[in-house]
Amino acid sequence: MIYDIAIIGGGPAGYTAAELAGKSGLKTVLFEKNALGGVCLNEGCIPTKTLLYSAKVFNTAKDSAKYGISCENINYDLSKIIARKNKVVRKLVAGIRAKMTEAGVEVVTGEAIIKETTVICNGQTYEAKKLILCAGSETVIPPIPGLKETGFWTSREALDNKEVPESLLIIGGGVIGIEFASFFNTLGAKVVVVEMLDEILGGMDKELSGLLRQELTKKGIEFHLTTKVISVNNNQVEIEKDGEKQLIHTSQILLSAGRKPVLKGITVNEYMQTSNPNIYACGDITGFSLLAHTAVREAEVAVEHILRNFSPSCGGGRGEAMSYKAIPGVVYTNPEIAGVGQTEEALQTEGIPYTVKRLPMAYSGRFVAENEQGNGVCKIIEGEDGSILGVHILGNPASEIIVIAGIAIEKGMKAEALKAMVFPHPTVGEIIKETL
Amino acid sequence: MIYDIAIIGGGPAGYTAAELAGKSGLKTVLFEKNALGGVCLNEGCIPTKTLLYSAKVFNTAKDSAKYGISCENINYDLSKIIARKNKVVRKLVAGIRAKMTEAGVEVVTGEAIIKETTVICNGQTYEAKKLILCAGSETVIPPIPGLKETGFWTSREALDNKEVPESLLIIGGGVIGIEFASFFNTLGAKVVVVEMLDEILGGMDKELSGLLRQELTKKGIEFHLTTKVISVNNNQVEIEKDGEKQLIHTSQILLSAGRKPVLKGITVNEYMQTSNPNIYACGDITGFSLLAHTAVREAEVAVEHILRNFSPSCGGGRGEAMSYKAIPGVVYTNPEIAGVGQTEEALQTEGIPYTVKRLPMAYSGRFVAENEQGNGVCKIIEGEDGSILGVHILGNPASEIIVIAGIAIEKGMKAEALKAMVFPHPTVGEIIKETL
Repeated sequence: MIYDIAIIGGGPAGYTAAELAGKSGLKTVLFEKNALGGVCLNEGCIPTKTLLYSAKVFNTAKDSAKYGISCENINYDLSKIIARKNKVVRKLVAGIRAKMTEAGVEVVTGEAIIKETTVICNGQTYEAKKLILCAGSETVIPPIPGLKETGFWTSREALDNKEVPESLLIIGGGVIGIEFASFFNTLGAKVVVVEMLDEILGGMDKELSGLLRQELTKKGIEFHLTTKVISVNNNQVEIEKDGEKQLIHTSQILLSAGRKPVLKGITVNEYMQTSNPNIYACGDITGFSLLAHTAVREAEVAVEHILRNFSPSCGGGRGEAMSYKAIPGVVYTNPEIAGVGQTEEALQTEGIPYTVKRLPMAYSGRFVAENEQGNGVCKIIEGEDGSILGVHILGNPASEIIVIAGIAIEKGMKAEALKAMVFPHPTVGEIIKETL
Repeated sequence: MIYDIAIIGGGPAGYTAAELAGKSGLKTVLFEKNALGGVCLNEGCIPTKTLLYSAKVFNTAKDSAKYGISCENINYDLSKIIARKNKVVRKLVAGIRAKMTEAGVEVVTGEAIIKETTVICNGQTYEAKKLILCAGSETVIPPIPGLKETGFWTSREALDNKEVPESLLIIGGGVIGIEFASFFNTLGAKVVVVEMLDEILGGMDKELSGLLRQELTKKGIEFHLTTKVISVNNNQVEIEKDGEKQLIHTSQILLSAGRKPVLKGITVNEYMQTSNPNIYACGDITGFSLLAHTAVREAEVAVEHILRNFSPSCGGGRGEAMSYKAIPGVVYTNPEIAGVGQTEEALQTEGIPYTVKRLPMAYSGRFVAENEQGNGVCKIIEGEDGSILGVHILGNPASEIIVIAGIAIEKGMKAEALKAMVFPHPTVGEIIKETL
């Protein structure tokens, strides 16, 4: 039997591609060696957000007096938090499986070996007309002397550990590192973050990242910027900043020095097609942004391109090209930080002129109502022609409202046009309209 | 001295108009007889949302075990909740006052008497070239026998009461009534809602309103639909449904049978201009939707129209006309309900063909992560040409994500185009992309 499409990897790129292809009537087979949902659902986005929500509930209870509510003996049970996280993951994995069944996708569990568009898995051969590689990414393990011997957590282990370490040293202050820093700090661990760059959350707006770092510092997290980890020796971590060395004692190490595609050197065109026109690649494996929502959109673009190939009646042409203009970035700390479009840093590098508008989040009545003593800022970067180049927000629920700016940027809406929209009152999202 | 613009009323329409006019260099005077911010800020949107957030914190603490968190002796102190609400209101009123000062707006406190575009206030006469009427709305008091004699709360009294009544009978199941029902139910009052129509929240999507009613019923609120209040006699309220009468005992009555413009018969064109071209009217006084965000947009449209009159260099033309196509409606219960665009009911009345797409909120990973045992639904109504006619969401934070759909509807985006946008993962907002 010959399949229309074989898809390697059942993460966001893979399951999105499979569902679309299956629903469109293409004979589709999906290969996944572990669990459907990939890193995102099983050991990434979803489990971390589930843990972070428990931490938020804990914080809400602790801060309840600010809102006229009292409670006593506030505590957490990490094993229960982890058990709930596992339940949420199971439920969502089952949901993906149901979607695959509904779309008529054949799911094969096993390691796939690929020869052009032919896949061998569990000793069986699957021939396909098109192949989409969605094999994802893996944790980068830097060669720090003593690290392997001492042992360390990656995000995977951190998500399944049932006891809060007394102290936690996090190598890498990117999104993953900072989200875990926020989580374990809330649960009472002494958290130290070591970051090589001069600010945490590289790639996000630097000003807002700095403000978030200050907030987290107030909560007791210790940051070492422009600092390298030199070596690890059991509970001693040697770090170096400006040539000066320091030893830090820690009961646990979390390594979050980034992720990298599982295969090197995959290049694709704007339809996610590799140099072999029958082979596409989507998601982290392309190395573009290593974000689940980028993967989803890439999968949509690839499948649409394939569909038009299979049936020119599908509208003709090649479908929409992949656009990376408005990919939101979100950090689910408390407060959240989210951004979309360009940063000041990127515009300066490119020499593009811009102006910045900025408002404290307290200009939103709802933010004030729901964030006693809360700070935050909404920052909008405009081009000389009044176009919106970037929007960056620190404050809850930045994650949910950033897409408003994303749509405006993707659609090329001018600031004036977005300002003319009716934002419901009172919402935090109004801050975008107010800032413009 | 002759002012460029005199504005009557310092609510959302009035303060928005004043700020825009002042910032644009027009000599502006704003008259407010009570507090800046109007009903919305002082006894409407903001205070209710502040109370509802305290109720949400109370609920979060009570439900914390679902998320692996424990706390004991959970309680509320209504006087503290009210005190905080007053503090939030004071802070935001001060913010509006600061905005007026910054924009160079003269604020006059007092009852304004109007003769064409001349205003008399506190014995002084203010002449202006243009006048914008933003005098707002007032609570409708239906002539129910015995009601006045017995005494009752309107939203104003309900917001300042420091003791939770044992039982509360709410006359009118519109947005205000249902938000208060949710609040007092959470604090432990026995709440009964009496609504004349066959569903609560008239004007919102009927299916979702029904689902919310079921949720609230589970929480202990009692609903009487298609039911009239016949008379009130101290603690006895006589209601009638299908000719059958019933007596209900209640310790307090809250009247929320709607609001009406303070002046009758004001009509405006698409630039909010009355039959006198120098007099504009914005906000509740026009009777269009009695929502703060409608008022804000109307004020923007009116001031832009006036500005182009004053200085044709301002782009010429008459500016954008007011559009009521995408005014979101939000109910801040827990869970929230929000909708924008057309409802099925309205389309059926108009005979416009449509299709409905519907997904449970549990298709959003973040919703599952943050709403243990939570239900909800996202419902999208599409026209025959693939345009988005209406979007209705039950589930938090519907209030914050509904504007995404509002922008799509206002801009005439097709379903396919909105689906191609990159929504950050994991967010509840993704449910819109998923449902499309």
